[in-house]
Amino acid sequence: MSACEFESLEKSLETHLPEAELREVKRILFGKETRKLDLPSCAVDAASERDFELKGYGFEAAQEQLRPPRRIRVGLIQHRIVLPTDAPILDQINAMHNRVGEMVEVAAMCGVNIICFQETWTMPFAFCTREKHPWTEFAESAEEGNTTRFCQELAKKYNMVVVSPILEREELHDTLWNTAVVISNSGNVLGKSRKNHIPRVGDFNESTYYMEGDTGHTVFQTQFGKIAVNICYGRHHPLNWFMYSMNGAEIIFNPSATVGALSEPMWPIEARNAAIANHCFTCAINRVGTEHFKSEFTSGDGKKAHHDFGHFYGSSYVAAPDGSRTPGLSRTSDGLLVVEMDLNLNRQISDKWSFKMTGRYAEYAEKLTKAVTHDFKPNIVKE
Amino acid sequence: MSACEFESLEKSLETHLPEAELREVKRILFGKETRKLDLPSCAVDAASERDFELKGYGFEAAQEQLRPPRRIRVGLIQHRIVLPTDAPILDQINAMHNRVGEMVEVAAMCGVNIICFQETWTMPFAFCTREKHPWTEFAESAEEGNTTRFCQELAKKYNMVVVSPILEREELHDTLWNTAVVISNSGNVLGKSRKNHIPRVGDFNESTYYMEGDTGHTVFQTQFGKIAVNICYGRHHPLNWFMYSMNGAEIIFNPSATVGALSEPMWPIEARNAAIANHCFTCAINRVGTEHFKSEFTSGDGKKAHHDFGHFYGSSYVAAPDGSRTPGLSRTSDGLLVVEMDLNLNRQISDKWSFKMTGRYAEYAEKLTKAVTHDFKPNIVKE
Repeated sequence: MSACEFESLEKSLETHLPEAELREVKRILFGKETRKLDLPSCAVDAASERDFELKGYGFEAAQEQLRPPRRIRVGLIQHRIVLPTDAPILDQINAMHNRVGEMVEVAAMCGVNIICFQETWTMPFAFCTREKHPWTEFAESAEEGNTTRFCQELAKKYNMVVVSPILEREELHDTLWNTAVVISNSGNVLGKSRKNHIPRVGDFNESTYYMEGDTGHTVFQTQFGKIAVNICYGRHHPLNWFMYSMNGAEIIFNPSATVGALSEPMWPIEARNAAIANHCFTCAINRVGTEHFKSEFTSGDGKKAHHDFGHFYGSSYVAAPDGSRTPGLSRTSDGLLVVEMDLNLNRQISDKWSFKMTGRYAEYAEKLTKAVTHDFKPNIVKE
Repeated sequence: MSACEFESLEKSLETHLPEAELREVKRILFGKETRKLDLPSCAVDAASERDFELKGYGFEAAQEQLRPPRRIRVGLIQHRIVLPTDAPILDQINAMHNRVGEMVEVAAMCGVNIICFQETWTMPFAFCTREKHPWTEFAESAEEGNTTRFCQELAKKYNMVVVSPILEREELHDTLWNTAVVISNSGNVLGKSRKNHIPRVGDFNESTYYMEGDTGHTVFQTQFGKIAVNICYGRHHPLNWFMYSMNGAEIIFNPSATVGALSEPMWPIEARNAAIANHCFTCAINRVGTEHFKSEFTSGDGKKAHHDFGHFYGSSYVAAPDGSRTPGLSRTSDGLLVVEMDLNLNRQISDKWSFKMTGRYAEYAEKLTKAVTHDFKPNIVKE
C-alpha cells in the first residue's frame, strides 16, 4: 500500500479494532468524542453526486446561566486541482471557482456560517518549480480581483463569511504575497492576512515568489466570532498562533499545502497543540492529490529531476481547546468538513486550565527581548 | 474496559491491524520508525525479575563529514509508589529509593548516559489533598538531602547524569519548591531547575505548596549533551519550551504527574510539538497507578469526596526534532524506556526546516512586550 492509496487513519482503526479497544484508542488519539452531525439529505446527496466526501461533527460546551450558547458552523474545503497545470490560466481558475462553488453550495445546505478554502486555492501549488512564469499570472488583487468578487457573491448569497487564501498581487508596487482575504457575510472585504512565516525547506523556498507578511496578527470580528488566519508554514511557529490568540482570536484557520513525505506525522500535532495552548479552536486544511508540472525540476536532495513533488494528503481537521479533535477528512479525495462548535467552550476551558493567567508572559517578553540580541549570553551551567 | 485496564495504544494497534495498514498508521501517528534496540539479556532478565517493562528504541541521524556522531542513551523511569501513602515517611522514601535504584541498575546495563525520574518521585502526588502535613515532610534540600546523596551515588557508580525531580525545601527561608536536581556523572550537583508554571486546575492548586520557580530556563552542559528540565504543567506553555531551546537545550525532560481524565489526549501532543518547534529532543515522563489517601478530599467539581483522584497513565515517550517519536511505555506498569539518539539530528533538522531562522523572533519580542501591558489594544478589525 503506498502513501497515496491509504485512505485514512480513522477508517483503518474503525475497520479493524474491537469495539471496547476502539473506544480507548479514540479517546487517547482524539480526546472527548465529537458528536456526528445529522446533515440534511439534500446535502448528502449533492456531495455524493458531485463526488466529494462530506463529514460533519459537533463539539459540545456546557450550558451557562448568563451567556447563551454561541453555536456556529465552520466549513473546511479540501480539493484537487481541476484542470492540468498547463491548461490556460483563466480556464484553470474558472474550473476551480466552479468546483469550489458547488462545494460551498453544499456547505450552505449544512448551515455553515464561516468557510475556509485551502492555501492558494485557485492554482496548483507550483512554487516547487521555481519558474516565475506562468505561475505569477495566477496572482490577483486581494480587494478587487476576480476571485475576491467570486467569493463576495458566495458570501452574500449564502450569508457566509468566506476566507479565501490566494496568491495576491499588490498592484501599486507589483509585489506578490501569500494572502488570505477575509470576506464578511455582508459581502464586504473585511481585510486580509498575509503569510507570516515563509518556508525554505524541501522543494520550497517560497521567498522566490513572496516574502514574510506585513499584516501582523490581525483578528477579524465577524458576526459569528473572532477569526484569524495562520497560513501554512506558520503552523510550525508556536509564537505565531500565540500572537493571534493574544489579539483575541476564537478560531484560527490554517490553510495549507503540504505533502506526506515532508510533514504528515507533524500534521495532527501542530494545529492541535495550538488549540490546547491558546484556548481556541484551530482548523487545519490541506489540499489533495498529486500535481504534475510540464517542466521538470529538482528538489535539492541529490535525486533526479521530476515532474511532481508528492502527494498532498488532505486530512483536514478541527481541534478544540479541550484537546479533542474531529476525525480528519480523507487523504485522497475532495471533501467538505462541517464542524459545529460552541465558542463558549474557549472561555470554559480557559477558566479550567488558566494558561493565559499562568503563562508569565511579562517575564517572557523581557527574556525574549534579551534573547534576540546578537550578543545574547545563553544561560548554560557547566561543571 | 476501563481506562486503568487498557494497556497501551501501541499494543492495540499491533494486535489488530493488518501489516500494510499498520505500517501506514504508525507512519502517520509516530513518524519515521524508530529502530528497536538490542538490549543485553542480563538487562532483559533483570527487568523481568524485578517486574517492570523494559523497552529500547533508537533515533537515527545522517552521517556527517566534519562531526562524529554524538550518540547517547537516555533513560526514562516511570513507576508506582511502593508503600501505602500512610506508611511512615522515611519508609516510603527508602522503598522508592530501592525501587528506582534497581531500575537504574538495569539502565546502566543498557548503557544509559542520562536518566530522568518522574516528578516528585520520592513521594505520592499528594497535592490534591490540600493537607500540608504530613506531605511537606517529604521535602528535602536539593543540594544536601538524602535523595540527592542517593542520586550522587548512582551517578558516580554508573557514570550517569541523573535528573532527580523532588519536593525541595530551601532551608534558609523554609520555602518549598517543585525542583529537578541535576547531578553530573561525576557525582557533583550541577544545579537545579524549578517548576516554572504552577497549575490551578482540577484537583490541583499546587501553589498551596510551592510557587512559580525562580531558576529561569537554565540549561545544563553535561558530558553527554546540553539538557534542560521543564517540569509537568510547564509542558502546556510553548514559550517555556522555547526559552529552554533559546538557551541551547538539546534534550528537554518533562517529568510529570498527570491522570487520564484530565490530560491523556493532550499527552502525545505537547512534548512532541515542542520537539518539532524547537529542533530538539523532548522526553515526557509520567507516573503510574492510582494513589489512595487516608483523608477524603473533594475536587471542586460538585462530586462526592473521595480518596483518590484517578489513574496516572504512564505512557512515557521520547520525541525527536523530525516529528517522529518512540512508542510509549505501558499505561499500567512500572517501566524503563531506553532511547538512543544522535544529537547531531537536531542541527540536521534545523538546517532542513530552519524554524530558528524563519521565526521572526525580534518582532515577537516587540509585540509581546506591548501585549503584556494592561492597556494593550488588540488588533481586531470590524466591519
